[in-house]
Amino acid sequence: MAILDDDRLLGTDAGLRAIARDLYDGVRDLPIISPHGHTDPRWFAENAAFPDPAQLFVTPDHYVFRMLHSQGIPLEDLGVPRADGGPIEGDPRRIWRLFAGNYHLFRGTPSRMWLDHAFQDVFGITERLSADNADAIYDRIDGQLKTDAFRPRALFERFNIEAISTTDSAIDDLKWHRMIRDSGWQGKVVTAYRPDAVVDPEFAGFAENVAKLGEIVGEDATTWTGYLAAHRNRRDYFKSFGATSSDHGHATARTEDLPQDVAARLFDKALQGTCTEDEADAFRGHMLTEMARMSLDDGLVLQIHPGSFRNHSGTTLDRFGRDKGYDIPTRTDYVHALKPLLDAVGHRADLTVILFTLDESTYARELAPLAGVYPCLRLGPPWWFHDSPEGMLRFRQMATETAGFYNTVGFNDDTRAFCSIPARHDVARRVDCAFLATLIASGRLDADEAPGVARDLAYGLAKQAYRL
Amino acid sequence: MAILDDDRLLGTDAGLRAIARDLYDGVRDLPIISPHGHTDPRWFAENAAFPDPAQLFVTPDHYVFRMLHSQGIPLEDLGVPRADGGPIEGDPRRIWRLFAGNYHLFRGTPSRMWLDHAFQDVFGITERLSADNADAIYDRIDGQLKTDAFRPRALFERFNIEAISTTDSAIDDLKWHRMIRDSGWQGKVVTAYRPDAVVDPEFAGFAENVAKLGEIVGEDATTWTGYLAAHRNRRDYFKSFGATSSDHGHATARTEDLPQDVAARLFDKALQGTCTEDEADAFRGHMLTEMARMSLDDGLVLQIHPGSFRNHSGTTLDRFGRDKGYDIPTRTDYVHALKPLLDAVGHRADLTVILFTLDESTYARELAPLAGVYPCLRLGPPWWFHDSPEGMLRFRQMATETAGFYNTVGFNDDTRAFCSIPARHDVARRVDCAFLATLIASGRLDADEAPGVARDLAYGLAKQAYRL
Amino acid sequence: MAILDDDRLLGTDAGLRAIARDLYDGVRDLPIISPHGHTDPRWFAENAAFPDPAQLFVTPDHYVFRMLHSQGIPLEDLGVPRADGGPIEGDPRRIWRLFAGNYHLFRGTPSRMWLDHAFQDVFGITERLSADNADAIYDRIDGQLKTDAFRPRALFERFNIEAISTTDSAIDDLKWHRMIRDSGWQGKVVTAYRPDAVVDPEFAGFAENVAKLGEIVGEDATTWTGYLAAHRNRRDYFKSFGATSSDHGHATARTEDLPQDVAARLFDKALQGTCTEDEADAFRGHMLTEMARMSLDDGLVLQIHPGSFRNHSGTTLDRFGRDKGYDIPTRTDYVHALKPLLDAVGHRADLTVILFTLDESTYARELAPLAGVYPCLRLGPPWWFHDSPEGMLRFRQMATETAGFYNTVGFNDDTRAFCSIPARHDVARRVDCAFLATLIASGRLDADEAPGVARDLAYGLAKQAYRL
Repeated sequence: MAILDDDRLLGTDAGLRAIARDLYDGVRDLPIISPHGHTDPRWFAENAAFPDPAQLFVTPDHYVFRMLHSQGIPLEDLGVPRADGGPIEGDPRRIWRLFAGNYHLFRGTPSRMWLDHAFQDVFGITERLSADNADAIYDRIDGQLKTDAFRPRALFERFNIEAISTTDSAIDDLKWHRMIRDSGWQGKVVTAYRPDAVVDPEFAGFAENVAKLGEIVGEDATTWTGYLAAHRNRRDYFKSFGATSSDHGHATARTEDLPQDVAARLFDKALQGTCTEDEADAFRGHMLTEMARMSLDDGLVLQIHPGSFRNHSGTTLDRFGRDKGYDIPTRTDYVHALKPLLDAVGHRADLTVILFTLDESTYARELAPLAGVYPCLRLGPPWWFHDSPEGMLRFRQMATETAGFYNTVGFNDDTRAFCSIPARHDVARRVDCAFLATLIASGRLDADEAPGVARDLAYGLAKQAYRL
Repeated sequence: MAILDDDRLLGTDAGLRAIARDLYDGVRDLPIISPHGHTDPRWFAENAAFPDPAQLFVTPDHYVFRMLHSQGIPLEDLGVPRADGGPIEGDPRRIWRLFAGNYHLFRGTPSRMWLDHAFQDVFGITERLSADNADAIYDRIDGQLKTDAFRPRALFERFNIEAISTTDSAIDDLKWHRMIRDSGWQGKVVTAYRPDAVVDPEFAGFAENVAKLGEIVGEDATTWTGYLAAHRNRRDYFKSFGATSSDHGHATARTEDLPQDVAARLFDKALQGTCTEDEADAFRGHMLTEMARMSLDDGLVLQIHPGSFRNHSGTTLDRFGRDKGYDIPTRTDYVHALKPLLDAVGHRADLTVILFTLDESTYARELAPLAGVYPCLRLGPPWWFHDSPEGMLRFRQMATETAGFYNTVGFNDDTRAFCSIPARHDVARRVDCAFLATLIASGRLDADEAPGVARDLAYGLAKQAYRL
Repeated sequence: MAILDDDRLLGTDAGLRAIARDLYDGVRDLPIISPHGHTDPRWFAENAAFPDPAQLFVTPDHYVFRMLHSQGIPLEDLGVPRADGGPIEGDPRRIWRLFAGNYHLFRGTPSRMWLDHAFQDVFGITERLSADNADAIYDRIDGQLKTDAFRPRALFERFNIEAISTTDSAIDDLKWHRMIRDSGWQGKVVTAYRPDAVVDPEFAGFAENVAKLGEIVGEDATTWTGYLAAHRNRRDYFKSFGATSSDHGHATARTEDLPQDVAARLFDKALQGTCTEDEADAFRGHMLTEMARMSLDDGLVLQIHPGSFRNHSGTTLDRFGRDKGYDIPTRTDYVHALKPLLDAVGHRADLTVILFTLDESTYARELAPLAGVYPCLRLGPPWWFHDSPEGMLRFRQMATETAGFYNTVGFNDDTRAFCSIPARHDVARRVDCAFLATLIASGRLDADEAPGVARDLAYGLAKQAYRL
């Protein structure tokens, strides 16, 4: 018995499905390149068992707890830690039952597909989760988690991950990455340079973070030139732990290319905490261009993830802290926003800038036209709320005709939900094969071309774009 | 012979259609819950015969006359009354012939499907309307309208309407609702609280309307506290006529949660007619939050219908008045706009706020992410121009993956075209079943889950969300 | 052997494809009406042979060279002329090889389909272009180009073009059009009035252009009344060369209807070069309304093509000049922008204003609702980046339900790539037939109605809307 349909997402018409199935058979077992995501390097460093089913599937997964919460379930009841350390549900089995009893809420969502995939393929479950079988499934997963075959490194190997990137703060000491390297384990876990804490004047503790950065690298990072040197130094350090990319999560896609003295003055104001909102935004925008210039020297790929209104609920931020499902996409402009960076370095074919969006109306209107002409630009895969079958299909339908396939970079899972990684890559491979099948069946692509494109989308483009 | 294909909208692939057909067979005959619309309570109070085919199908239906007008037909020729009482076409048969002779303009539109449905199912017509059969069809409909079986209450029962809500101004005396109640007729016709006339400082006669509200409820509504008390009082009165919801049609989705003294000062300026545009917008926005607070006490569901640029043509407004097909959707922001209200009451699971939109780009970007986390939020069905097969499909495709099914509220017909009600609900049921069939056939939903979802979408969710 | 699938784009489901095929068979051989485009009238005037395959297919086609450039190929290597006359690749065969070796970049793009169509149908090529056959195909095309059967007039006739419109500057002397007329050749090549150079205060040399306009028509065009008279005069001159339309390519869709004295003062500032950005925009906007008023007198159809951020890359503008693939769409508002013009003349059924967009989010939200009510408005076909199978399908899916078919105007190829004209019209005909087939198969259109609609979309509507 199976939870999942083996032909899922490959098309609903028999003819198309046969074509898609053939393509999918050629890519389903390719290794996973996970060039951007949020797994915890500590898992691979310590290789400790995951504690229990609730802490594996419910409590840390914002896709899961936000849906349960949307129907009135308090986050406390799902074991989400309170900022003040106040009481929350501490019994994982009770959390699990609550989750199982509300599993119908996930009908039609990608979470449902990822969860079912993990239940079936990772844990061998053969029945759909429900209130009735909640305890039995809990016990089965819990039992397996206690065995060596379900420790992080074993799963990493079983998942056929060729390379995975974590995302670490510029002022992180990368001790878990060091521990992985020192362990002699052969799994390729690299870091990515995420400098928001030392680039965003509005980030909590910005000045302290900059001071710490200076300390770490032995530069006076409180001067503009020292600050830039500190970034260069730190990027090199990250590179020594395998980093091939930097990553920037700003509220907008704004870039600036300010004269150095203007940038330096903004930096001083940022350190003193006297930037206006607009100045803070300008400084962040200017730093993207500085990062792009550094990339020209050190080869790191620049990723821009703009457009999330973080922590929309003030109440929830106060009570539970950041990343609690209350990040909401906003309308995002790229055409005007990216011009300063593109005027500065946009024609350098040795630079790779990967653009993401939470605003799908920009796919056909802005992103594909930009990536379809600027040599440095590539389009990241559908992100976050759009990392879904319908979202992926819309991306291909709206971006391909203007940007083609080769200005895209394959798939990113972008997740901290470890067991969902194979599921997410599998969804992307299936949807892409179904899309290619449609092109073939409608005379827009020759059958002999498609297998190569399918491999590029599943594996080659990510490896190449991220230089992994 | 039939005008309509019995399998319409159930999918074009035979396999999918078979699945969809099964699901549809399970919901096609469910009673109609019509929780939001604009039928005239007078129809059910007086139960008088509808006058003639033109006044039933053409003159009052803005979908119909706007399309005819767009091709150069003067509104006068369609019998639309002029504001100055000037001459218009008064012969319903001539209006009908004009309509019939231009029936090709409706090809591919939902109006065509609603009209055909009503012609066939309500009036037993078996031929597509055209210039050739215009008179014959006119006579057939006209003849039936004169019989008791085609009076409003008889049609209400024949349409299998379990409950319908009209929408009435806060200063309406609800005399027709009283007459319905007093008549002993068992049809469930409830009202909804629509306070735009006493909440929007830019509404014609705002101060007089507020004074009238105070008079009706016996409060001095010209003071801020008296004004709020008057609303509470009036909402209770509406509840006594079955109201379970309030409804708010603002130009934007802006909300505010102002300090009471600031709100009171704005209210004074509003009464004096000295609000700036922005102050008027702020006042409306603040009143949404006040209404939400009242809902916490009295249980009314809060509906927000933003984003229509009303009466876009000044010429037409002057010549024919409001609601003449010249309301045009505009780009609408929800993420920033709703934050004040959500910060105030967004986490109350005992509150229901139903969001509508005329800007489909917000489905996946803003509305589904918001409704997928805030306990109070639910998404209304595709509205107005988007109440159509393609519009419904886009809604499901763009909202479901993030909001699921259970943060939506089933269907609203939102119409004043009485005979289109069964047709509109039928279209929604068919499109939803076809969507569910696609999920099943692509392995995204189990076959045993779908019938329950189909029933929830067709009936259960509307009943539950609107507390009907 | 064939490069193209004869059933391409007609649907992937066998049942749908059969319906679409029937419809397509009824329209595939209809003459081409090309009411808006950028072919060079000189071709038809001189009837000289096209020089070589690279200059026919690569160097002048911004769709083609922007994609190659996006992957790092310098424009110089593609033979794109430098503004400073500096060295570029001059060997067409080398340019062709570069193109052929990168032909995989076009997978999934409309360019690929247009190119394949031209290769097969115009030049009889039977193999997909690749690095391996680049020289053979080059030779074959090059050889044919040297023959009379491949001169512009012969191709025009072979393409079955009933009428084509070029687009010419208001200060163009139309000498090529005169030469065509004087030649006695029967091909119908008309002009269109494009006054951007004398309407846009920010256009390079605006004041000189206006002076030149005055000179040409013998009016003092430096006074407001003389300027308007000069336009009227010049429009008449264009009409004498067959013009049936004017065309306006502004950055936004803004219109204004200023008092004449205010407009006159703005015009003075424009001539003196002292307009602010906003004043320049207002002047352009006002001129759209003036042009619409002139249309009421002379019957020219008014086309508005807004929303392109022209020459986004300053570097490329400096190095290569305008129109080098760096025009990027931007978000565009129509609802507020068009109101002044619509208030002035929007109800005149004897006026035709055709709206285009690069912002697909406006199809269902703004454009279809506007065109579905204002008598003067019609919707142009999917434009530029959206002139593609997916783009056309989205247009029909998003515009039809509110605007119907009869508020649209058939297809425009809008191209300067001559050999792509039959391919582009063919794509539009196929996609429209597939869309109609879906409507039939889903019970939304009767089978007997569809052939007429298909002919209207392929031929009749363009002829009628453009009065050709």
